This record gives sequence, C-alpha cells and structure tokens, in this order.
Amino acid sequence: MTARFIVLYETPADPGAFDRHYRDVHLPLVRRLPGLRCYTLGRDAVAVRGEPYYLVAELEWDTMEELRAAFASSAGRATAADAARLQELTPVRSMIYTVDESVL
Amino acid sequence: MTARFIVLYETPADPGAFDRHYRDVHLPLVRRLPGLRCYTLGRDAVAVRGEPYYLVAELEWDTMEELRAAFASSAGRATAADAARLQELTPVRSMIYTVDESVL
Repeated sequence: MTARFIVLYETPADPGAFDRHYRDVHLPLVRRLPGLRCYTLGRDAVAVRGEPYYLVAELEWDTMEELRAAFASSAGRATAADAARLQELTPVRSMIYTVDESVL
Repeated sequence: MTARFIVLYETPADPGAFDRHYRDVHLPLVRRLPGLRCYTLGRDAVAVRGEPYYLVAELEWDTMEELRAAFASSAGRATAADAARLQELTPVRSMIYTVDESVL
C-alpha cells in the first residue's frame, strides 16, 4: 500500500529562477514532511506524446492517513504555502492517489 | 538508477470503454515488455491543484538502455500500436526520464 502525491510542473518562463527556488527553498521544506518514505524528481523528460513536463515530483507515504497527517503538520503547512509561490512561477497540476502495485 | 516512462490519461468521454480496453488489451501487452521492473497504476486521484488525471501509469526499467530496448522489441511495438488506440479514447501526455532518487 502506497499513497502518492504527484506534482507536474510546466516549463517555467524563467527556468533558472524556478530551479533556484525549488532547490533552495522548496526541497528543504519537502524533506521535513513527517513520514515521507520516498521522494523522487524527474527532469529533462523526453516527450513520447504531447508536451513533456519540466519537472515531475513524487512523494510517497505508507498510507493515505500518514500523507494527510504530513500535510496537516506545521512542516506540511509551510510546504503548501511555498507550493503556492512555486505556482506563481509556472502552471502546476498535482494530485493524490493510492498506488495499485498489483498490476505487474 | 531508474528509467521511468509515465503516462497521464485525461478523463475519457466513455470511461467504461477506456477501462475495458486498458484492462483487457493494453495491460496484458505492457506486462510482456522485457525488463519491466515496476508497473503501477493510480486511479481515483484527488486533485490538489488543477484537474486530476483519470489514470497515471508508471513503468520502470533499471536503465534507459533497457527501456529503449523494451520499446524496440516486438512486445514494445505491439504496446505502442495499442497506445495509439488508447489515445483515440482520451488525450494523453507521456514522457521518459531518469529518476533522481537522491533528493530525500
């Protein structure tokens, strides 16, 4: 059982400013989220269909309850506040779902 | 080191037809891809920002070379041909990237 939060960032107008803010401000906040089991980033994506996202961030917790608790914590509120700042730099789609790992 | 192929499906006009095709035709093809190490699906996503995708599929290989070899194989060509059929049922964005797992 895995609860995943995926964040898909479009290419920013100013990639340098976005990268600096993500690396220097956002990333340290995400790392503080309680119970965060896995955190991966995907950059330099090569498109197969449609436009590639600029950055794909995935955060995982053992359960949906732990995910929700993390975002309700003080670290979670600080991360969400900073995510609003990132969204000013580029359009974002983000969502939460339970991962079905039984398909392979 | 992980090479990931992510496929993001918008909500289909006919979810039942999409689900049947994905489950009965596409999924068995994906399972045959050589070297496929991880295959997960995310459904019933709850939006945080923007519209949620209807289905998030992630396929992982150990290396980008193995990923490319898988799609060059006969199973890969059959999967790609069927992906074109899925795209007739709903818009898709898909891309390939190397996963940075060193951030946590």
